[in-house]
Amino acid sequence: MAFVVAESLAEQIANHLASRIIQGEMVNNERIQEARIVNELQVSRGSVREALLILERRHLITILPRRGAFVTELNAERVRGLYRLYGNLLEMLAEKLSWSCSDSDRQQLSGLTDKLRKSAAVHDENLFIEANFELISNAAEVADNEYLTTALENLRPPVQRALALAVRNNLSEMDETTSFMANLVDFALGDQIDKVSELVNGYFKRHSALVIQAIQDQSGTASR
Amino acid sequence: MAFVVAESLAEQIANHLASRIIQGEMVNNERIQEARIVNELQVSRGSVREALLILERRHLITILPRRGAFVTELNAERVRGLYRLYGNLLEMLAEKLSWSCSDSDRQQLSGLTDKLRKSAAVHDENLFIEANFELISNAAEVADNEYLTTALENLRPPVQRALALAVRNNLSEMDETTSFMANLVDFALGDQIDKVSELVNGYFKRHSALVIQAIQDQSGTASR
Repeated sequence: MAFVVAESLAEQIANHLASRIIQGEMVNNERIQEARIVNELQVSRGSVREALLILERRHLITILPRRGAFVTELNAERVRGLYRLYGNLLEMLAEKLSWSCSDSDRQQLSGLTDKLRKSAAVHDENLFIEANFELISNAAEVADNEYLTTALENLRPPVQRALALAVRNNLSEMDETTSFMANLVDFALGDQIDKVSELVNGYFKRHSALVIQAIQDQSGTASR
Repeated sequence: MAFVVAESLAEQIANHLASRIIQGEMVNNERIQEARIVNELQVSRGSVREALLILERRHLITILPRRGAFVTELNAERVRGLYRLYGNLLEMLAEKLSWSCSDSDRQQLSGLTDKLRKSAAVHDENLFIEANFELISNAAEVADNEYLTTALENLRPPVQRALALAVRNNLSEMDETTSFMANLVDFALGDQIDKVSELVNGYFKRHSALVIQAIQDQSGTASR
């Protein structure tokens, strides 16, 4: 039995469309035109459909039977539901990290925190989002609970989308998010796990409000 | 654009294999023989490979490059990691339920709790496991956080597998699990959300130990 490790065509199409949704080129409730993607990318209808099923699993599009596929509407309720779960998972991650971190793990995580800080300093949105999730993925690997790792991984696309929206609307959110992540890692590794819950709640309360504000600003612009 | 709602062949194969793993007919680390499945079910190699990728996403099999697919080893570490996350999600579920439950939702959940109780009373393993997840799915629908619903759904196969193992080893675990679930729903709906954390921790601590014991008993039997 040989499994192809390379990305399938459907995954490549899904990644392409995911970037466009995350970067805000495709907006809330926008209809996804299957035929147009087939033409633009010169791929088969079957691959596009498979890509759409992948994007549905990634919480980026919604498929309505007999009506088609649409960019999932990011609204206040979804943002709150998303961050409630995500914050909870980050708390679990910090707790598990606090037990299972070797010296070389610490060095690696501290290096990745520096990388995040640098990307925020130059205000590079894509670099910043990439560095943020590189830090989380690595922390999850160290924490070594594969179910938690998968759960975090599954939320990555909608969290990327919301975070990208927030930083486009307000560049200083890169610095806020960077200090949150740096504090989270510091508390986890510095045996201050009792401070994590307050940190997470405080950050996501403020951050959610900012994302919701960005959505409202965006829809105001669109309807003008 | 028309999406096929019916189960694909790959999903049917995946469900068939999932049942065999959950019911303990296929055991820890057992090699999955692709050619044998192709012959037994008279399906194409492509469909079987797709089914194996589905089962990998469901945490039931592990695919090793160039070595093949194996039933994921359920061991003490995995059981603890699984229940740490699952317990956490159930706490979130109870918390959200406590806010967003109408009278008709209450009636429905109480009906499903009765159904669970009845299935435990007759000690029917399959009926019991089905009733348990029917209650959780319905509670998740009422709680109405789609990210939480998906996260719970994604853990269903490994939790089913661990729960089935526990009740096969110790029938009374059906009653224990039933009272846990009934208490969880009661606390959530009866505004006693402050009691949920202790309930969840107590149940999963005991239940994890039981599953780990069942795994040890099983491997003892296998190696005899």
